[in-house]
Amino acid sequence: MTILDGKKISNQIKDEIAIEVASMKERGEKVPHLAAVLVGTDGASLTYVGSKVRSCKRIGFESTLHHLPSETTEKELLQLVHQLNEDPNIDGYIVQLPLPKHIDEQEVLMAVHPDKDVDGFHPTNFGKMALDMETFISATPYGIMELLRRYKVDTEGKHAVIIGRSHIVGRPISILMSQKGKAANATVTLAHSRTKNIKELTLQADIIVSALGVPHFLKADMVKTGAVIIDVGITRVEDATKEKGYYITGDVDFEAVSKKASYITPVPGGVGPMTIAMLLKNTLLARERHRKNA
Amino acid sequence: MTILDGKKISNQIKDEIAIEVASMKERGEKVPHLAAVLVGTDGASLTYVGSKVRSCKRIGFESTLHHLPSETTEKELLQLVHQLNEDPNIDGYIVQLPLPKHIDEQEVLMAVHPDKDVDGFHPTNFGKMALDMETFISATPYGIMELLRRYKVDTEGKHAVIIGRSHIVGRPISILMSQKGKAANATVTLAHSRTKNIKELTLQADIIVSALGVPHFLKADMVKTGAVIIDVGITRVEDATKEKGYYITGDVDFEAVSKKASYITPVPGGVGPMTIAMLLKNTLLARERHRKNA
Repeated sequence: MTILDGKKISNQIKDEIAIEVASMKERGEKVPHLAAVLVGTDGASLTYVGSKVRSCKRIGFESTLHHLPSETTEKELLQLVHQLNEDPNIDGYIVQLPLPKHIDEQEVLMAVHPDKDVDGFHPTNFGKMALDMETFISATPYGIMELLRRYKVDTEGKHAVIIGRSHIVGRPISILMSQKGKAANATVTLAHSRTKNIKELTLQADIIVSALGVPHFLKADMVKTGAVIIDVGITRVEDATKEKGYYITGDVDFEAVSKKASYITPVPGGVGPMTIAMLLKNTLLARERHRKNA
Repeated sequence: MTILDGKKISNQIKDEIAIEVASMKERGEKVPHLAAVLVGTDGASLTYVGSKVRSCKRIGFESTLHHLPSETTEKELLQLVHQLNEDPNIDGYIVQLPLPKHIDEQEVLMAVHPDKDVDGFHPTNFGKMALDMETFISATPYGIMELLRRYKVDTEGKHAVIIGRSHIVGRPISILMSQKGKAANATVTLAHSRTKNIKELTLQADIIVSALGVPHFLKADMVKTGAVIIDVGITRVEDATKEKGYYITGDVDFEAVSKKASYITPVPGGVGPMTIAMLLKNTLLARERHRKNA
């Protein structure tokens, strides 16, 4: 059994990007600049955004954090989005989700210019991804693909079962893994809340990607020996004995399932860190594109 | 066994649209106007485009056919595309595929304005479809969904196996059938050229959509009793005994498979006619949108 060490690989990727940034500086070029928009004070969002900004610093990117109060109106947020679209200094930016309930998320994501949409959430970028054109691929599915590629996991002709049809994980990874190319060419089944006999499916799977958000959903008796297990679930479970008052757990009953798996991602330290690395890679791509089109 | 009669349903849909067009006229409104661009003299393309134009006439749409010679350059074609984008009289238009080899199809499809892209091939429209937003859904997968809905075929929680991952059929229908909604909520497996043991998969399927283009690929021993069979394959097989010199056949060994199926589409007369009906429905939607935005 091999641990798919997302922390290690994401550090490798960050180091690779840092080298590129250093040579950009040497050539006297502008370095990539990522902006992040955060509305409100959701704990997990603060953690994610903070981590993204720290990663930018570490690899030599410029970064700007726009932290707006919870009572920001949709109109005010859209004004900032338009400003970021126009700002030639910003190569890419993200609007951290979830947004407060009085703001229409879809409206905001549609307003982000596709050329700066390093989260890959805009329909134009999602469509390009689905049609196998060059684009910004959402960081989480992109991170899973990169993890499979770096560990040279054989996916060709394998049966992959994806659990969960969310627009940010299940849907895009089901598309990417069934396309032509590396870490792809799998026969993909997309399972979701209406799926009957999920166990019957997972027992056939050579690869399982669980993106459900239900702690310990995937048990050892649902997995065949030698399967590749990708755990995208990240749930905070309250626990007074922990310093932070909670611990993080995935969809997979790691202890039991890891004994049967050929490869498995831990939580934390698996898919999570890959997400940030791929966001940075998208920002680097955005900078390259802007330089070429300047 | 019930025949999913695409010819009958497509005529129903055309009649419904004709009624809408008649009341548009009564209200003194502009009727929908579909333009078609055809480059060269490919036999099948001539047939398809001719049929689309005739359908427009029948239901009261205006239509314009731009038939360009095979030697048309990409630049000339793009000029026409830009002209159609700007023309306020045209509600929607299609560029009939395939284009001659010296023209970059993707370049041309990207140039079609998403608001007039009634074929739903532009990445922005494809992305909206994949993200479950209102948009123009490509006519063939849209036609399949409509056929399933009108016959009230139960798809919820059923296992659908899609054979073929093309951008115009296999990929979009795999997305649509696994979304929430009517004729959807299926557990979907997407199989393709790299899939191993296709028979093992099709034998599990409650619904099979074959979009491969290989005559008589799907045999009775690959299908479980009571399965729903959607045949999207349309292959011209040369046959000197036929008046036209060929006959049309699907992916499914109809005679044997129909004995096991609960529902099945014939070829011709199944998915094919639905495609044109849904193109007209998209053009009607385009007109409605333009009217509202005028």
